[in-house]
Amino acid sequence: MRAEFINPFLSSLVNVLMTMAQLEITPKKPQLKTTEVAKGDVSGLIGMVGPKTKGSLSVTFEEKLALEIMNRMLGERPTFINADVTDMVGEITNMVTGGAKCQLSEQGFDFDMATPIVVSGRDHTITHKCEGQIIIMPFNSEFGRAYIEICFDD
Amino acid sequence: MRAEFINPFLSSLVNVLMTMAQLEITPKKPQLKTTEVAKGDVSGLIGMVGPKTKGSLSVTFEEKLALEIMNRMLGERPTFINADVTDMVGEITNMVTGGAKCQLSEQGFDFDMATPIVVSGRDHTITHKCEGQIIIMPFNSEFGRAYIEICFDD
Repeated sequence: MRAEFINPFLSSLVNVLMTMAQLEITPKKPQLKTTEVAKGDVSGLIGMVGPKTKGSLSVTFEEKLALEIMNRMLGERPTFINADVTDMVGEITNMVTGGAKCQLSEQGFDFDMATPIVVSGRDHTITHKCEGQIIIMPFNSEFGRAYIEICFDD
Repeated sequence: MRAEFINPFLSSLVNVLMTMAQLEITPKKPQLKTTEVAKGDVSGLIGMVGPKTKGSLSVTFEEKLALEIMNRMLGERPTFINADVTDMVGEITNMVTGGAKCQLSEQGFDFDMATPIVVSGRDHTITHKCEGQIIIMPFNSEFGRAYIEICFDD
């Protein structure tokens, strides 16, 4: 897991939420996943397969933040994580990974994306099972927290 | 999503649990995911990327079943879903997908596997976001239920 992989994913989520939902999130310091655990209520997950490596990404939101993004993107304010919200989280996951893929491709690091999977459930946790180190990127917002986690086989 | 994709995944889970844990599970009728929802406590997820298509797989276990598999495979009987259990679920996910990949490759359908991700959280649900239909395969056992869900872009 190389440090230059971090910024494309981090900036991609910040940009997607600003562009699509006019919502500002503040990145906190990325870290190796040793102590901090991303707990959230809805997560988008996606597998990545390249000629040299493979890996996985997750984007996790607390419920209140996911519902606020929904409201700002689509003008709907559901009271719980329904199918429209999981659709939106799947789309955000695709956009974040696709945005990072573009940036990393310019650096000569290519991968293809699988289709996203969305998990909903109160306070679930995600564990990426790959050989490299797991990087966790926490974000704050006035509506709650979000996390990206990425891992690539070395 | 083609019907001939079902059996390789279904038989692969049955075989993995019988071989690794001497545990028998009984497949129920596979169905399109319209009404039945796989709720479980621990799930392994994996992305698949091939030259012609891409997709995702999940294997979901109820806690009691996951802990019994753990006991039979590794002789440990944890009282909750700890890191050893999520490791095991990640391995099972790899083995099930790898087994199906071998069978499907003989039929001329190739894909590469991303690295697995494991989700734990009481009663979480999984939604595969791809263009094709989602197939859900329920399994019964004396220790609880398991589900495979697969989806490929058409």
